[in-house]
Amino acid sequence: MPHGPEQLLLELFAIFVAAKLAGEFFERLHLPSVLGEIISGVLLGPYALGWISPSDSIYSIAEIGVIFVLFSAGLETGPDDLIRVGKKSLLVAVAGVVVPFVLGFAYMKWRGDASTEAIFVGAAMVATSVGITARVLGDLNVLSTQTAKIILGAAVFDDILGMVLLAVVAGLSSSAGLGWLHLTVLIVEAAAFALFMIFVAPGIVRRINPKVQRLSIQNAYFVVAIAICLLFSWLAAKIGMAAIIGAFFAGLVFADYAPQWGLRDRVIGITDFLAPYFFFSIGSRLNLHLLTKDVMIAATVVSALAILSKLLGCGLPLLREGWLPALRVGVGMMPRGEVALIVALIGLQSGIVTQSTYAIVVVMTGVTTLLAPPVLRHLWRDSLPS
Amino acid sequence: MPHGPEQLLLELFAIFVAAKLAGEFFERLHLPSVLGEIISGVLLGPYALGWISPSDSIYSIAEIGVIFVLFSAGLETGPDDLIRVGKKSLLVAVAGVVVPFVLGFAYMKWRGDASTEAIFVGAAMVATSVGITARVLGDLNVLSTQTAKIILGAAVFDDILGMVLLAVVAGLSSSAGLGWLHLTVLIVEAAAFALFMIFVAPGIVRRINPKVQRLSIQNAYFVVAIAICLLFSWLAAKIGMAAIIGAFFAGLVFADYAPQWGLRDRVIGITDFLAPYFFFSIGSRLNLHLLTKDVMIAATVVSALAILSKLLGCGLPLLREGWLPALRVGVGMMPRGEVALIVALIGLQSGIVTQSTYAIVVVMTGVTTLLAPPVLRHLWRDSLPS
Repeated sequence: MPHGPEQLLLELFAIFVAAKLAGEFFERLHLPSVLGEIISGVLLGPYALGWISPSDSIYSIAEIGVIFVLFSAGLETGPDDLIRVGKKSLLVAVAGVVVPFVLGFAYMKWRGDASTEAIFVGAAMVATSVGITARVLGDLNVLSTQTAKIILGAAVFDDILGMVLLAVVAGLSSSAGLGWLHLTVLIVEAAAFALFMIFVAPGIVRRINPKVQRLSIQNAYFVVAIAICLLFSWLAAKIGMAAIIGAFFAGLVFADYAPQWGLRDRVIGITDFLAPYFFFSIGSRLNLHLLTKDVMIAATVVSALAILSKLLGCGLPLLREGWLPALRVGVGMMPRGEVALIVALIGLQSGIVTQSTYAIVVVMTGVTTLLAPPVLRHLWRDSLPS
Repeated sequence: MPHGPEQLLLELFAIFVAAKLAGEFFERLHLPSVLGEIISGVLLGPYALGWISPSDSIYSIAEIGVIFVLFSAGLETGPDDLIRVGKKSLLVAVAGVVVPFVLGFAYMKWRGDASTEAIFVGAAMVATSVGITARVLGDLNVLSTQTAKIILGAAVFDDILGMVLLAVVAGLSSSAGLGWLHLTVLIVEAAAFALFMIFVAPGIVRRINPKVQRLSIQNAYFVVAIAICLLFSWLAAKIGMAAIIGAFFAGLVFADYAPQWGLRDRVIGITDFLAPYFFFSIGSRLNLHLLTKDVMIAATVVSALAILSKLLGCGLPLLREGWLPALRVGVGMMPRGEVALIVALIGLQSGIVTQSTYAIVVVMTGVTTLLAPPVLRHLWRDSLPS
């Protein structure tokens, strides 16, 4: 018998059970289970105990898992909601991009680093990793609240802006430098994608609805929804955005049809099965060995700035609505994830960024990721969906 | 941005849509959609059009997909059912293993091949690939019929017997030869596994039921069921049986709890999403280039023997019940799949079996796989579940 299948199944089982057990443990401490899933990855991953080093197959499955986390989040939102909170979300996103970038850049320059290195750190501090927030809000059953919609909406705009910054740093890291034409094309593509998904796609779904009904295969509605989710995820990745943004938009498009098409339970089945692999592998990538005392000081400052800058940038525009919504949005936008790590990786691979700067970004990602869920849960502790 | 995610998403999308479109096309021709999914793999795969060569990630996902096909099938069966049809299933399985092996061995010897090569072909003709049959019966909504249960039960015993034969050929192919001790250990392990799953495991599930209810994580029942499905799949692979047999047993164990635990829709969500990757990759592995005229003649004879031997071996023990049930069981046990290909691969890799003998087994697998679904559907054409 080939060795492969057995190995993959053991990995699938071990990661699933480790993540879910840690999740259960955290739930009992009244902390979000997703935090437990991430920490199980940190502890069992290659940089701590070293019991489980996720294989490439697990990373692929993790990638599919996060797509379904965002697809589920989109299913619970609906495009009309996003349009309604659109202006506020845009404001939150823009301020939440500018403030972290400026603070990050300024601190690194003050510390004596090169401008390019400072730009990388600033860029890594920009993009919110909405997957974790969406999961926490989903666990709390508050995805339908106005505040949650502002956060999810802002994360969408945030990613579009983050993608532009990513293009800038990718341009910095290539020998050819950054072309303005390339940048303009990217911005136009991203804007066209978002507008199409919000304003045009729901109409298309309305029109294909009777056609899907006539299909002969089993669960045709579900099959069509999955196909479109995969298509939009790929398209988003193709034009240089994160795949998860495409998945979120695809969820938005089907939100109005989720009950009628029987999508919810089936999509939740996939998400519940695959998402733990994503959160486990997020944790398993945190390299604890890169942390010297010097790096830790800088990392602490950068982490503090990363938290403060999102609180200020994302919270202040909403202060008129009261402290609580402003804080909730600020904290909801706090976690950084894949995009920050990708920015750091591009810098490291092109030799612009040192190992220690890379470690700073990794720690900042970890701290913001680990801190946001309990704080979010605390901020929502006495509220029912409203 | 790294190239990986985009590539994986494109593959996921293309295979899913190709398989489902082909499935829809076949449904409209009143053929089973699973046949369309396999043929989409043959046509678009590396040996025909070459548009899609599944990557390792896709093969991993396919492997998970077939596990959920069998888990779903088990969920619809229930261990009591299996015990009730147990004697008949055992009879069908034993005769259905002996007849193909003898016929395959005899033909290859008559043709002038070496004994070892003849043993390989005989062994490859033994193991039923119940995944395809289970899917067809599921599409027809007849999984709850007595005949379907005999087929699924026989496939379980068949795999246990097939595993012993696999151990024999694996022993043949290793320089050390086959140890009787090793063989005995394998048989005892397999029997213990089957008895445990059928007689002991359901009681354990009954006892943990109230404990699962007290868990704090979301969808705790579903999470526990998935964990146990992965555990048993791994265990089955670990002791040398096919992983899918473990998944099927896990499904059996939870069958009585499927409605109460809300498992069905969620498991169907996963199965509907992942199974097409399995059936597509089954198709994509059929290498059409190995087929010379000489090979085609032998392959045709072996395929005919493979069909005839299962019809005789599996059908005759049931002839007292009438022609129709006997035929249905014989045809249901007809498709060969992964195990046949694994046997052939072991022979090829150890140099015992030639390229052309390998091609014969591949064709036999393809023919039995492609033929069974339409014939099954035809045999069930005017019956409602009874």
